[in-house]
Amino acid sequence: MFNIFLPTKIIFGQGSVEHLPDSIKNLGNKAMIVTGKKSTKQSGLLDRIVSLLKKTDVESVIYDKIQPNPVSNDVDEAAEIAKKENVKFVIGLGGGSAIDSAKAIALTAAMGGKFWDYVEVGGGKKPDKALPVIAIPTTHGTGTEADPFAVITNPETNEKVGIGYSVIFPKISIVDPEIMITLPKNQTAYTSLDAFYHSLEAFLNIDANPYSDILAIDSMKRIVANLPIAYRNGADIYARTNLAWASTEAGITETLTGVIANHAIEHGLSGFHPELPHGLGLCITGPYLLEYIFDEIRERLAILAHEVFNIDEYNTTTAARIFIDMLFEFQELFSLNQKLSSLGFKEKELENIAKVAYRAMKGVVVKTPKKLQENDLLQIIKKAF
Amino acid sequence: MFNIFLPTKIIFGQGSVEHLPDSIKNLGNKAMIVTGKKSTKQSGLLDRIVSLLKKTDVESVIYDKIQPNPVSNDVDEAAEIAKKENVKFVIGLGGGSAIDSAKAIALTAAMGGKFWDYVEVGGGKKPDKALPVIAIPTTHGTGTEADPFAVITNPETNEKVGIGYSVIFPKISIVDPEIMITLPKNQTAYTSLDAFYHSLEAFLNIDANPYSDILAIDSMKRIVANLPIAYRNGADIYARTNLAWASTEAGITETLTGVIANHAIEHGLSGFHPELPHGLGLCITGPYLLEYIFDEIRERLAILAHEVFNIDEYNTTTAARIFIDMLFEFQELFSLNQKLSSLGFKEKELENIAKVAYRAMKGVVVKTPKKLQENDLLQIIKKAF
Repeated sequence: MFNIFLPTKIIFGQGSVEHLPDSIKNLGNKAMIVTGKKSTKQSGLLDRIVSLLKKTDVESVIYDKIQPNPVSNDVDEAAEIAKKENVKFVIGLGGGSAIDSAKAIALTAAMGGKFWDYVEVGGGKKPDKALPVIAIPTTHGTGTEADPFAVITNPETNEKVGIGYSVIFPKISIVDPEIMITLPKNQTAYTSLDAFYHSLEAFLNIDANPYSDILAIDSMKRIVANLPIAYRNGADIYARTNLAWASTEAGITETLTGVIANHAIEHGLSGFHPELPHGLGLCITGPYLLEYIFDEIRERLAILAHEVFNIDEYNTTTAARIFIDMLFEFQELFSLNQKLSSLGFKEKELENIAKVAYRAMKGVVVKTPKKLQENDLLQIIKKAF
Repeated sequence: MFNIFLPTKIIFGQGSVEHLPDSIKNLGNKAMIVTGKKSTKQSGLLDRIVSLLKKTDVESVIYDKIQPNPVSNDVDEAAEIAKKENVKFVIGLGGGSAIDSAKAIALTAAMGGKFWDYVEVGGGKKPDKALPVIAIPTTHGTGTEADPFAVITNPETNEKVGIGYSVIFPKISIVDPEIMITLPKNQTAYTSLDAFYHSLEAFLNIDANPYSDILAIDSMKRIVANLPIAYRNGADIYARTNLAWASTEAGITETLTGVIANHAIEHGLSGFHPELPHGLGLCITGPYLLEYIFDEIRERLAILAHEVFNIDEYNTTTAARIFIDMLFEFQELFSLNQKLSSLGFKEKELENIAKVAYRAMKGVVVKTPKKLQENDLLQIIKKAF
């Protein structure tokens, strides 16, 4: 048995951002735009969004302090401003950090208190409302435009935690590949691989279902075929459109089924080292997780070898091994097979990382098709060290 | 550019109907169950639903007069009862007729007036609310569990019209293949082919998009592989589960993209001859529509020849012709290649049928990849006569 529930209205396609004014009618006359420090200003996108809002008489309050791996302090500060300014809805403009922060701000502003009150390993309260959230992604990876999740780090504890509540499903998401063409090479690779791992992990999840399966396979195929092209030529709009759609598909897959232990481990890694890009972190430990649980996922990997990499090998075990090899090879195209030791991680940190990852993200660890404990996560991290 | 919007929570799987009490918490203490005259009583399902409602202290008001090709008079009568009894939500239990009626009743009871006031070719009013609708399908074809449509006939004008409003998306749909195993042989075929044509027509729709495409192809494959088995042995739960999921997928496809002229024609046919099963009507004219617009859909049909029937023919025109041949062959397995003349239709009716079909369903005719007028529909109907 499985459930389907995705109440977000998603507007997908080239030029779709121009539909913003039509989409937000009746939401109120004041919006907070949540964005990062640089890229949406440099590209002119932030100004463009402010103008589009003006067109329909919506005033903008800009909160532009969001950094990669966003932190709860910023969420709390922005929520205070949102309340004081009486904003009616919150627009997340940027990558996953900006949109996840917008979701967290929308929740905290509507509910009151501090964001960490609504995190399971924090205050543990359940929110029952949030301001409406509009998501306008400028990257193609997080899938946050199509899911009820927000990932925020508590800088005091290094806990990087994903919350999931129906009230923070975006009300509207506008996914416009044209605003993604300025995404730099490395971000192009990181975010695409983030989407890839959403689909791969959902496909391996013990709750996998036929709906998320076909979306997962389709999105992985699109990424394998299009990322090499977009990586070389970022302005190729066909490749960008495919990657954008793959990301949204992977987001739907995450909503339908969800990720497994690799995401938990990565939250541990970048919780302690916020400079580690999320997509890179996933690539560093991902293949080692697959090897660690190989016996449990052999048949599923063999399907993916055939569907995603077009490998015609009918011995299940061989095909499954080829999938892992091909994944390494694919990641190598974008220099994503790195080792933690060369990225500033210290061996003595690893135990603590595994501990926090397990504690903060146990909910997804238990969806892995092998019962994994804290020590299992540590073993996988050590392989990637 | 395309939009995605499906706010319905769908609970899919064997035994899912037992989750009814949990699903309807907070909807209120009185429900109207809308169902047909016979089958849900004979199977004991109606009693089971009443008991499940009682478990969570919800009282049932039963409206059991719905007939195939439901009529607006019944909707109006039931809406009056719903208002008088102050029911809080409406459960559609049965095939498309029962669920579509439930949607129409939920709308009319909340808005007031008569149902036909809210039909474009009727009063033309736009509804902005409806009572919550719960859909529990006992057939696997209409897709109404995953769409905002309801098809109701005005017995005074023979207009069989589909309305589509966001407010009548079911709030919750419970799709349980176990309650479908008693579906008779002929209904098993009719409803499966209804789902097949939802997907086929959505795939050919000028608004087709990658999301509805993969769901359309997946559902057609499931039907081709599983209907022969379920047709011979209705109790095969694997085949039923596949057909049930194919129907829901096709419903999502319909919501994402929608049907084309074949559905318009069929509404004309069964509007005048309500005894004609909808799925049979679709099969009678479907292949002739494909031939009529062949030049415009050749490439799409070639894709389907390969994907749905596994035909390895790489000349596009040949592959497309093979698809139409195979569709006839597939329909023949279930005796669905009938002629209108042998089903009580008179030649002199045909012109009027085409006229009413065009008038009532122009909205889907214009989504066909060739500009079709009333006379084009008539030519297609004549081929099927």
